[in-house]
Amino acid sequence: MNEFRYELIKECKDTGARVGKIHTPHGVINTPIFMPVGTQATVKSMTSEDLVEMDANIILGNTYHLYLRPGQEIMDKAGGLHKFMNWDRPILTDSGGFQVFSLNDLRKITEEGVEFVSHLDGSRHFMTPEKSIDMQNSIGADIIMCFDECAPAGADYEYTKKSMEMTSRWAKRCKEAHKRPHDQALFGIVQGGMYEDLRAQSVKDLLEIDFPGYSIGGLSVGEAKDVMYRMLDATTPLLPKDKPRYLMGVGSLDALFEGVVRGIDMFDCVLQTRIARNGTAFTSHGKVVVRNATYKEDFSPLDPECDCFVCRNYSRAYLRHLIKAGEILGARLLTYHNLYFTLVTMRKIREAIMDDRLLAYKREFFEKFGITE
Amino acid sequence: MNEFRYELIKECKDTGARVGKIHTPHGVINTPIFMPVGTQATVKSMTSEDLVEMDANIILGNTYHLYLRPGQEIMDKAGGLHKFMNWDRPILTDSGGFQVFSLNDLRKITEEGVEFVSHLDGSRHFMTPEKSIDMQNSIGADIIMCFDECAPAGADYEYTKKSMEMTSRWAKRCKEAHKRPHDQALFGIVQGGMYEDLRAQSVKDLLEIDFPGYSIGGLSVGEAKDVMYRMLDATTPLLPKDKPRYLMGVGSLDALFEGVVRGIDMFDCVLQTRIARNGTAFTSHGKVVVRNATYKEDFSPLDPECDCFVCRNYSRAYLRHLIKAGEILGARLLTYHNLYFTLVTMRKIREAIMDDRLLAYKREFFEKFGITE
Repeated sequence: MNEFRYELIKECKDTGARVGKIHTPHGVINTPIFMPVGTQATVKSMTSEDLVEMDANIILGNTYHLYLRPGQEIMDKAGGLHKFMNWDRPILTDSGGFQVFSLNDLRKITEEGVEFVSHLDGSRHFMTPEKSIDMQNSIGADIIMCFDECAPAGADYEYTKKSMEMTSRWAKRCKEAHKRPHDQALFGIVQGGMYEDLRAQSVKDLLEIDFPGYSIGGLSVGEAKDVMYRMLDATTPLLPKDKPRYLMGVGSLDALFEGVVRGIDMFDCVLQTRIARNGTAFTSHGKVVVRNATYKEDFSPLDPECDCFVCRNYSRAYLRHLIKAGEILGARLLTYHNLYFTLVTMRKIREAIMDDRLLAYKREFFEKFGITE
Repeated sequence: MNEFRYELIKECKDTGARVGKIHTPHGVINTPIFMPVGTQATVKSMTSEDLVEMDANIILGNTYHLYLRPGQEIMDKAGGLHKFMNWDRPILTDSGGFQVFSLNDLRKITEEGVEFVSHLDGSRHFMTPEKSIDMQNSIGADIIMCFDECAPAGADYEYTKKSMEMTSRWAKRCKEAHKRPHDQALFGIVQGGMYEDLRAQSVKDLLEIDFPGYSIGGLSVGEAKDVMYRMLDATTPLLPKDKPRYLMGVGSLDALFEGVVRGIDMFDCVLQTRIARNGTAFTSHGKVVVRNATYKEDFSPLDPECDCFVCRNYSRAYLRHLIKAGEILGARLLTYHNLYFTLVTMRKIREAIMDDRLLAYKREFFEKFGITE
């Protein structure tokens, strides 16, 4: 793993936050970072040009979806996801574990792996740690994930413990199955549900196997936010300082700040793009539900403080019209803005850490956005 | 009408084709031109930036749709469609006539106007020539249309004659109702169905009223293409050479060429954008139905001879994946390409006319595209 390296640049004096750079074969990722989600080989409605323009450092792909469609053969023939979707910056893929568990009621879990039913055509599949890694090797993302079991929200101690222990055994199998450690960094995934001691054991197991980075999985699965933050408090201090830390599937604006102050470097979330398609925007002054009648004659920009091309060129009234009329352009423009806004917020977070004023910036942002701490 | 002017630049020696420039308050339109259709204040999935990038000279808006949503009040408050949708090049609006007749089974036509039912909410409306012009004055397009009756395909001589005569009377009322002749050019619409003598009478009526440009309506409504071309042959020679001629709602690639050689200057059609959303592309070598399995592993560009950003960056296999997965980006990329391809074809048509080789270019294009003359 000579191409992959985490460079710690600055630690926050008041919190666990840190600024760093992750060096990958496809370029540098400035952390803390938000990663737009490109589930089916596309960040919905965005071109690669759009994502470069908004300076997305890295995007996410979903192994489960790509495995089912277009499938591994196409990925191999295309020469990987970068070429397939025309994106030459870093990519991260999850392992498919989360989707296998969250999108499938009919899954059957054994030590060997998971049998599941395709949400597309009902066909049966068997996913194992080895097959997940094999698929991720075909996709060719710069950062890939171990295949894990994401225990359901509210799982009891016994279930969670057994699940976490199996995830540790699977992590070992994943590392052994990994055929491209020279240009794909495989991250271990910390599990353990809402139990501090299980989280600690999970970290211990993974550190023994040794990975170039660590993810925290199984959070934001239905638990209260303070429980999630408690789990982070119990986990990140145990993780090595010289490796990146990725909080999986979390990206609401408050959670981005709360994760950063607890030492998280990487985030991803479908929230920004999903609410965009439903007509809701994140702005400096809170959420704007564009489809509301309030904005019918509002010819001001979505966010007067934002300098993205949507805010420079289009009005709330126009965006509302597009969303109400079911026009694709409405989803596209709001998606662009929401991603841009979130990426700019992350940049400001990095700057605030560098300038030793992260907590002040957090307070200011929360107050303007209307988040109660 | 000092801002609006048609400048005839060159007439084809072998055909009725001509190259010209239409000067409007929002800039120059190079004719013959294809106008992308922006029905609901948006060319579906495209931003203004996209349309400028592909060098669309002018786009179309539909009065019927804008009248129902967002409505005249919003158009007035926005300061017109240009500002509302952030488009500062020329716009043309139809009169709503075609939609009132084609989208409404419950319409009731009288000399005064047409009662129709909204396709959105079933509400009843009464549209008159005066109200159509009033709405088009609010929209503020550079080129606007008289409110006409588009007789149904297969209408008999008597019906078509009466309908055409009423359209002539309505044209007069439209001209009288027009409140912005100084910055909006009102075109008369030639009707008369598939009857040469009625077409000739319609032209005569409209010339008497006198308009800065003339549209040919009521074609491509179900008749065979050779009938349409016969109607053009009977109509365009009667139209003045110093005014632009617009063939409404026609834009298949063969019809663009056939219209141009018969002296048409302006075309619009939803075909390009509609088939794009269904996964079909126009290319130099004919239609490509991207969703077909043939293209599953085809990593070549949509059209190897096209230099648009889609063809430069994305493969057929990727576009097929997007369309199959129902991804917005698929519709967006194919829309961009189809419009770009059509606009480039029109530019080549203009160049061919200038170089006195239009018929040769037409033969060459038809042969490569697979159109039998």
